[in-house]
Amino acid sequence: MESSRYDGRRNDEMRKVTITRDYTKYAEGSVLIELGETKVICTASVDDKVPPFKKGTGEGWVTAEYDMLPRSTATRNNRDRNNLKINGRSNEIQRLIGRALRSVVDFKTLGERTIIIDCDVIQADGGTRSAAITGGFVALMDACSYLVNANIIPEIPIRDFVAAISVGYVDDRELLDLCYYEDSRAIVDMNVVMTSTGKLIEVQATGEEAPFDRKVLDHMLDLAEKGINELVAIQKQVLLSR
Amino acid sequence: MESSRYDGRRNDEMRKVTITRDYTKYAEGSVLIELGETKVICTASVDDKVPPFKKGTGEGWVTAEYDMLPRSTATRNNRDRNNLKINGRSNEIQRLIGRALRSVVDFKTLGERTIIIDCDVIQADGGTRSAAITGGFVALMDACSYLVNANIIPEIPIRDFVAAISVGYVDDRELLDLCYYEDSRAIVDMNVVMTSTGKLIEVQATGEEAPFDRKVLDHMLDLAEKGINELVAIQKQVLLSR
Amino acid sequence: MESSRYDGRRNDEMRKVTITRDYTKYAEGSVLIELGETKVICTASVDDKVPPFKKGTGEGWVTAEYDMLPRSTATRNNRDRNNLKINGRSNEIQRLIGRALRSVVDFKTLGERTIIIDCDVIQADGGTRSAAITGGFVALMDACSYLVNANIIPEIPIRDFVAAISVGYVDDRELLDLCYYEDSRAIVDMNVVMTSTGKLIEVQATGEEAPFDRKVLDHMLDLAEKGINELVAIQKQVLLSR
Amino acid sequence: MESSRYDGRRNDEMRKVTITRDYTKYAEGSVLIELGETKVICTASVDDKVPPFKKGTGEGWVTAEYDMLPRSTATRNNRDRNNLKINGRSNEIQRLIGRALRSVVDFKTLGERTIIIDCDVIQADGGTRSAAITGGFVALMDACSYLVNANIIPEIPIRDFVAAISVGYVDDRELLDLCYYEDSRAIVDMNVVMTSTGKLIEVQATGEEAPFDRKVLDHMLDLAEKGINELVAIQKQVLLSR
Amino acid sequence: MESSRYDGRRNDEMRKVTITRDYTKYAEGSVLIELGETKVICTASVDDKVPPFKKGTGEGWVTAEYDMLPRSTATRNNRDRNNLKINGRSNEIQRLIGRALRSVVDFKTLGERTIIIDCDVIQADGGTRSAAITGGFVALMDACSYLVNANIIPEIPIRDFVAAISVGYVDDRELLDLCYYEDSRAIVDMNVVMTSTGKLIEVQATGEEAPFDRKVLDHMLDLAEKGINELVAIQKQVLLSR
Amino acid sequence: MESSRYDGRRNDEMRKVTITRDYTKYAEGSVLIELGETKVICTASVDDKVPPFKKGTGEGWVTAEYDMLPRSTATRNNRDRNNLKINGRSNEIQRLIGRALRSVVDFKTLGERTIIIDCDVIQADGGTRSAAITGGFVALMDACSYLVNANIIPEIPIRDFVAAISVGYVDDRELLDLCYYEDSRAIVDMNVVMTSTGKLIEVQATGEEAPFDRKVLDHMLDLAEKGINELVAIQKQVLLSR
Repeated sequence: MESSRYDGRRNDEMRKVTITRDYTKYAEGSVLIELGETKVICTASVDDKVPPFKKGTGEGWVTAEYDMLPRSTATRNNRDRNNLKINGRSNEIQRLIGRALRSVVDFKTLGERTIIIDCDVIQADGGTRSAAITGGFVALMDACSYLVNANIIPEIPIRDFVAAISVGYVDDRELLDLCYYEDSRAIVDMNVVMTSTGKLIEVQATGEEAPFDRKVLDHMLDLAEKGINELVAIQKQVLLSR
Repeated sequence: MESSRYDGRRNDEMRKVTITRDYTKYAEGSVLIELGETKVICTASVDDKVPPFKKGTGEGWVTAEYDMLPRSTATRNNRDRNNLKINGRSNEIQRLIGRALRSVVDFKTLGERTIIIDCDVIQADGGTRSAAITGGFVALMDACSYLVNANIIPEIPIRDFVAAISVGYVDDRELLDLCYYEDSRAIVDMNVVMTSTGKLIEVQATGEEAPFDRKVLDHMLDLAEKGINELVAIQKQVLLSR
Repeated sequence: MESSRYDGRRNDEMRKVTITRDYTKYAEGSVLIELGETKVICTASVDDKVPPFKKGTGEGWVTAEYDMLPRSTATRNNRDRNNLKINGRSNEIQRLIGRALRSVVDFKTLGERTIIIDCDVIQADGGTRSAAITGGFVALMDACSYLVNANIIPEIPIRDFVAAISVGYVDDRELLDLCYYEDSRAIVDMNVVMTSTGKLIEVQATGEEAPFDRKVLDHMLDLAEKGINELVAIQKQVLLSR
Repeated sequence: MESSRYDGRRNDEMRKVTITRDYTKYAEGSVLIELGETKVICTASVDDKVPPFKKGTGEGWVTAEYDMLPRSTATRNNRDRNNLKINGRSNEIQRLIGRALRSVVDFKTLGERTIIIDCDVIQADGGTRSAAITGGFVALMDACSYLVNANIIPEIPIRDFVAAISVGYVDDRELLDLCYYEDSRAIVDMNVVMTSTGKLIEVQATGEEAPFDRKVLDHMLDLAEKGINELVAIQKQVLLSR
Repeated sequence: MESSRYDGRRNDEMRKVTITRDYTKYAEGSVLIELGETKVICTASVDDKVPPFKKGTGEGWVTAEYDMLPRSTATRNNRDRNNLKINGRSNEIQRLIGRALRSVVDFKTLGERTIIIDCDVIQADGGTRSAAITGGFVALMDACSYLVNANIIPEIPIRDFVAAISVGYVDDRELLDLCYYEDSRAIVDMNVVMTSTGKLIEVQATGEEAPFDRKVLDHMLDLAEKGINELVAIQKQVLLSR
Repeated sequence: MESSRYDGRRNDEMRKVTITRDYTKYAEGSVLIELGETKVICTASVDDKVPPFKKGTGEGWVTAEYDMLPRSTATRNNRDRNNLKINGRSNEIQRLIGRALRSVVDFKTLGERTIIIDCDVIQADGGTRSAAITGGFVALMDACSYLVNANIIPEIPIRDFVAAISVGYVDDRELLDLCYYEDSRAIVDMNVVMTSTGKLIEVQATGEEAPFDRKVLDHMLDLAEKGINELVAIQKQVLLSR
């Protein structure tokens, strides 16, 4: 019989997920996603410009930016603007968010415009990058609906749902959806991005503390699939609610 | 008889103000202040270091940082970190917030440590800098209480309450607490910082669109005093609520 | 009977003001302003470009930059270029200079071009920002005359004279035109920008050391008005001299 | 029967690998690794300092930097120093190299010093990040031998061999060790870091062009394992050669 | 018979040189040097710190910074701080000034402190870098006298006088001390730094427009020697005047 | 009889020079130059754009960039990108390389395009800047041949050969082609750029340690001429070899 987790969850149990649409009033899509105590504001902004490599192609683009409020964490972080550079971790995460969301977008239908997904962490308790992808997808959908409703594009240019979750190997157990306390003790840390049909978009597994067996990877992928099915169900429910 | 304002308010009427304490969980002080549709998160973080000019003096320091989420406004703003510099307006505002709050702090009692007030605008509808001062003051008080409760300092090192409000001259009328629509049409724009006892801390009045008479300044100061009295009353009520 | 000031002046007495036109030979307007021992070079440069928000409007723009030579002060300051950012104080001051001068410019008459006012402090003894505004105005007038004489614009696009002065509250007395020694002891520091007709353009009063009464503000405004009347008289005399 | 690849290789066939030790004369470890036409110089430099979070712990650190010569690619890239920021891709890769190498280092034995692995791409034809890890490991071993030979540390503080390889899904086939031509047509791109004992250190699989099935992931992991076994054999042979 | 120059000078004739000491009041040495219409403010500031490579050696250092006011030239230059980097030309010039002045300083006698020479060009009409060296030397002497008079060092730690001049090859003639009009037409441009005893400190000759014969170099060196003798005579006269 | 040098060479003897063309495969010109143990990769890249001051003139441009790998030297240097600025020495050197190569280019024949010469030092043992010019010239020639062969320009737009060498004054002797050990002990350091016909392009002589006589300059120029004749012979041989 397995022992329970730090916060009493089962190994394959996610934290409570809440997705609030229309969280702020100006953005074409604006979502607050809460994953346990982790809170991320995800907005989607439509911009008429595209990056140079898309100019004249008739195709659009989706990009993401990720940042944390200085005191979203237990100890205060300096703002990137004061260091005159974006920190490596934020940069890596926003590239991941962009890739993940672009994988299901039909750029022809979107037309020559960019949707920018801004993910700002208000409170961080583990899993901020997967929360940003899961919440960012809902904001992206809302921005696309706005474009359809305004007769700017003919239909929603999204081919599938996308969500993400973290999994880790902690104290000889594979655990779904790590909180910060678990994350800081994990020897393997994995983030998985998947579609609603169980297809993989991104797998990032790191064993910085110690190398790991392939069967650990397999088990963690099973857990991720379970979690992502639940997240997609919540996304669908929230998006159908209006 | 005067015509009513854009949103039906009287000339000397403030928007609804809500101050939520303990808005996020890590900071020593954490406040969400809502001034109508303007929403600012103000956190207070205690740091054991002081700036060079305070080292070895036994005295502390209070400083502030101000930023806006990219889509807190009608059109998206680039993040400062991407421009490799802090924008001039944010810089000016955070210097104002720091000066305003420092004016009532007893640095000897605070001891050789810094309290950093982070003001991050989630949604901007005019008056963000005065909201940041008013909310930042409550976060500062909470951080000081934390220091007292932890027996780190003997008593709250704050001599008086501080709040701030904007006033403007719009369509030949002095108006209290401008929303963005009014602010964009104002020919004179003023921000006033005051104590609970009606003393002035900072007066910044600008007539970029057109020079103005001294009696307009006087009338605007009267309005500011009325607004600040109301704000201080709310601060007191909120701080006494626990 | 009041005691005299550090340098023997009366409370409402300005330092000696000298404005030298055509100080350097290339700029369309070039002025050295001396306010006691404070010396600022103000040049006005005409540029055919305008900022993005003015493009295609047929209207012009006026902007300002402010800097200090490293050894214009008692202790040497690092150059901003070495810090890879403009320091907060300079940024704030140059925004003030720009706003002050723009308030009297008729942008339609100026046409789609920018006049850049560069204010470089050679020697600083208090009051550099107000000297920069007062001297910058004369440089701006000269650049406008140049445009009129070259038949580029039909008439001087300036609606009124603009000058600025500092006032402070030091040792329980309101004093006009603070030198550095007085400025460093002031508990209230105010800068006022006014037109020749006594209208206010900008009022910035700060009581960082201690909050202050509104009657102090009133008295300081009276002093500022007296000083600005004298400064405008000097501007007129200098500009008429040729 | 499967069709052969662009350059005639079988699906599970690596390009020719050459590792040249002592490539330059100053660094404690200096390696040129050639993976087909991809060429990367990897140097290991010993530094007596450690990052702040290691100070006083008696433990060391390993970090990596990655860059490309401007014309290592078909079209010239701007140097990062001219953009005043490190580009996102380089940043992500150097973080990966650092994590990968750290996973097998015994920091206690290394002692309070840092080994910096500089990976500079001279010519890029796909697989530069995995070449950098594989070559960087040899440079790291050489720097450790230097420390042992100089009696600075008692023994080589490396627990296992580390190598990395890319795998991709191109034209419905899983392929080992993509050259640039294949990489640019891949719909799934994966990098795998493993030890000599077949344990995983890092798995990064991305399906930006299209989501992919888990059995594709499994097959790609099989290929990666085959490739890494071959790379470790080469590393061992090269390190034993002296 | 040779034709006269643009401004009527003979080929080997310098422009009028004026050196004003104590030009500003705070710096330990402060000089305005005028070379024809070229005007440079050179200040010397004493700093108690030395660069890392001099720490603990008991020896001092001399360093220089060079900048131009934005409108010191016919068309306005952007400030370096706005470009977030020092421009290449200024950087090269300030390195030259530093090397030139250091060549005659006895760092042991100076003791562990730095003298910073700030050279700010107020008006540029050719020859700013040689003016900066010639004027900077006088400021350096004054700062050394200050240190001697304050009993901080026992004697002036300067071994010889240093001055610099430009020479050029224009319209098949070698010319001494080019003004901007001549400089812009020169096919060879040379700067020479020499001591009072005719020893060379620095020779920089550039034939970007066209390669040149060695006898041109020789003739230009003769002219430079003549000019530098005159400059050193002026330096001596100015320094003896008090 | 003169004593021999550190490495046994005569005073007027160069180190072994090797120039390898087509060192990397993508650039239009790509050269590895070895000057003793100094190794520099020089690539020439053709770009269809020109700097603003050349736009619409029908003329081309040549520019250079210079950098060192972090561990090309005995102690590791920080990358410029981490300091957020190009270091002064690299900046000065790349300006020199650009000037030197431009002096023999016929920009009309080159047409409105830029050739960028990237010089990256792999191993530094003195003389890197002259090696970069000598090797960069060969890369430039190869890029021009590429343009001629591709029928983009009618003929090679290069008027003469260009090479460069260092000379120094060490232990009372003038020495040709200093290695690092000699360079660090030199009291005069000179770099000379010349054409195949013995014309001077650039002379930079610095006596930071001590001023020097003009006859030393003369002798060093003689040595430089001898060395450059040898270098041009090698350039010709290498370029004719195919």
